[in-house]
Amino acid sequence: MSNPTAAMLVIGDEILSGRTRDSNMHYLAGRLSEIGIDLREVRVIGDEHGVIIAAVQQLSQMYDHVFTSGGIGPTHDDITADCIAAAFSREIDVRADAREILAAHYKKAGTELNEARLRMARIPQGADLIENPVSAAPGFKLENVHVMAGVPSVFEAMVESVLPTLSGGAPLISKTIRIDRGEGDIAGPLKDIAAQFPLLSLGSYPFQKDGKYGAHVVIRGNDSDDVEAAIALLGAAFS
Amino acid sequence: MSNPTAAMLVIGDEILSGRTRDSNMHYLAGRLSEIGIDLREVRVIGDEHGVIIAAVQQLSQMYDHVFTSGGIGPTHDDITADCIAAAFSREIDVRADAREILAAHYKKAGTELNEARLRMARIPQGADLIENPVSAAPGFKLENVHVMAGVPSVFEAMVESVLPTLSGGAPLISKTIRIDRGEGDIAGPLKDIAAQFPLLSLGSYPFQKDGKYGAHVVIRGNDSDDVEAAIALLGAAFS
Repeated sequence: MSNPTAAMLVIGDEILSGRTRDSNMHYLAGRLSEIGIDLREVRVIGDEHGVIIAAVQQLSQMYDHVFTSGGIGPTHDDITADCIAAAFSREIDVRADAREILAAHYKKAGTELNEARLRMARIPQGADLIENPVSAAPGFKLENVHVMAGVPSVFEAMVESVLPTLSGGAPLISKTIRIDRGEGDIAGPLKDIAAQFPLLSLGSYPFQKDGKYGAHVVIRGNDSDDVEAAIALLGAAFS
Repeated sequence: MSNPTAAMLVIGDEILSGRTRDSNMHYLAGRLSEIGIDLREVRVIGDEHGVIIAAVQQLSQMYDHVFTSGGIGPTHDDITADCIAAAFSREIDVRADAREILAAHYKKAGTELNEARLRMARIPQGADLIENPVSAAPGFKLENVHVMAGVPSVFEAMVESVLPTLSGGAPLISKTIRIDRGEGDIAGPLKDIAAQFPLLSLGSYPFQKDGKYGAHVVIRGNDSDDVEAAIALLGAAFS
C-alpha cells in the first residue's frame, strides 16, 4: 500500500518578499518523512483572500493531508482562518472553547484579552482545535487541512500536537554514500542501479571541496533490504 | 503601472523529503524585491515528469516570469530540461553551443566529457543559454521560463546572469519598526494605518525575548513617502 500524501501551504508576504527565510517547510518535510507520509508539494503564497482560498481547495482535493503555516495571529493581515472557512463554505466566529483557552492564558499573563487578541479565537464551524503549548492561541483542523502558526517555535509545537493523530505508512529509509568522483563519472553506474531498483529513489548531490569534485548519493525507499543492496552495488562500482 | 510578476519552481525530491534545506527561494525572493519584480508564488515539487510539465505550463501562463531551480545536472534524475521542452512542445537534443562550453571546461580540467556530462548540453530548440560562471554547464531560458541549477552557488550565479536582462518595476521599499508591546496591542492602530494607506502592505512579526513580547512591524510599498508617513504614524501611536 502506498503512503498517505501531503501538501504544505506557506502563507505570507514576508516570505515572498525575501524578508523572512522560511524554516517550517524543512521542519515539516523531515517529520513527515520519519512517519511515512509523503510530502508531494509545497506552495508559498501571499496574504490574499482569493489566492489562499483557491490553493486550499485545490491542494485539499489533490492530497490526503494539507498543512498550512502563517496568518493566524491577531493583526489585520492574519486572514488564514477566514479563508479556510470560505474555502469549505463554513461559518466562522469567535468560538467558546478557543475563547476560554485565550482568556485563561491572558489572565495568567495579566494581559487584556482585547478585540484584536480575540480574533485568534475565530474558528470555522466544525473544526477541531490544535493545541498550542507555546503561546496558547490554537490552530485548527478542518476537513483534511491542518491550520498552524507561522512563528517557527509555535509551528513546530503544533506539528508535534498533530502528528500523533495521523496514520503514517512505511517510513522512508534513507542512506547516503559519499563518492569522491565527479558527478559525470557517477551518473552511468547510478542509472544502471536505478533501473535495477525501480521502487527506490536515487539522488546525487554534488560538492566541490579543496578543488576536488565529489557527490553524496542518497538512496531512499521503504524497503531497507533494497536500500542496503543498492548502496552495496554503488560502493562496489567505485571501490 | 504595476510591477512584473514572477513565480519560482523548486524541483527536487531532496527538498520534499527534508534531506536538503532549500536556500534558493530566499535568495531569489530578495533579489527580485530589489529590482521591482513581484514574486507571487513558489512551488516545490518532486522529480516527476508529469508534475513538472503541468506546473511549468500553469505558472508560465499565470506570471510574467518563471524561475526554476534544480534537475539540470548529469544524472538520470535530472529531468528538468526534457520536461521544459515537453511543456512547450519543443525538440531537445545536445546543442553545439552548449557542447562547446562543456568541452572547453572539461578539457581545461582534464576531465572526460562522457555521455553523462554531455546530458548537460541538452537544450530545447529555440532556448537562450544562461551563463554559469561557477561550473560551466549552462542554464537556459525558453519562453518566459528561466531554468537554473539547484546547487546554491550555481543558482545564485545564474540569477546574477539573468537579472540584468529583465526589466523591473518600482523596487519594493521596506521599513521596519520595533514595537515593544504584544501583537494584540499593536493590531488596532496597525489596522487603522493599513486602512489609510491601501497601497502599502503592513505586516507584523511577533517575538518574545527575555519574557517580554514585542513585534517587528514591516511596512512595504513602492512609494517611499507613503512608507515613511505610515512608519511615523505607527511610531507616534506607541511613543
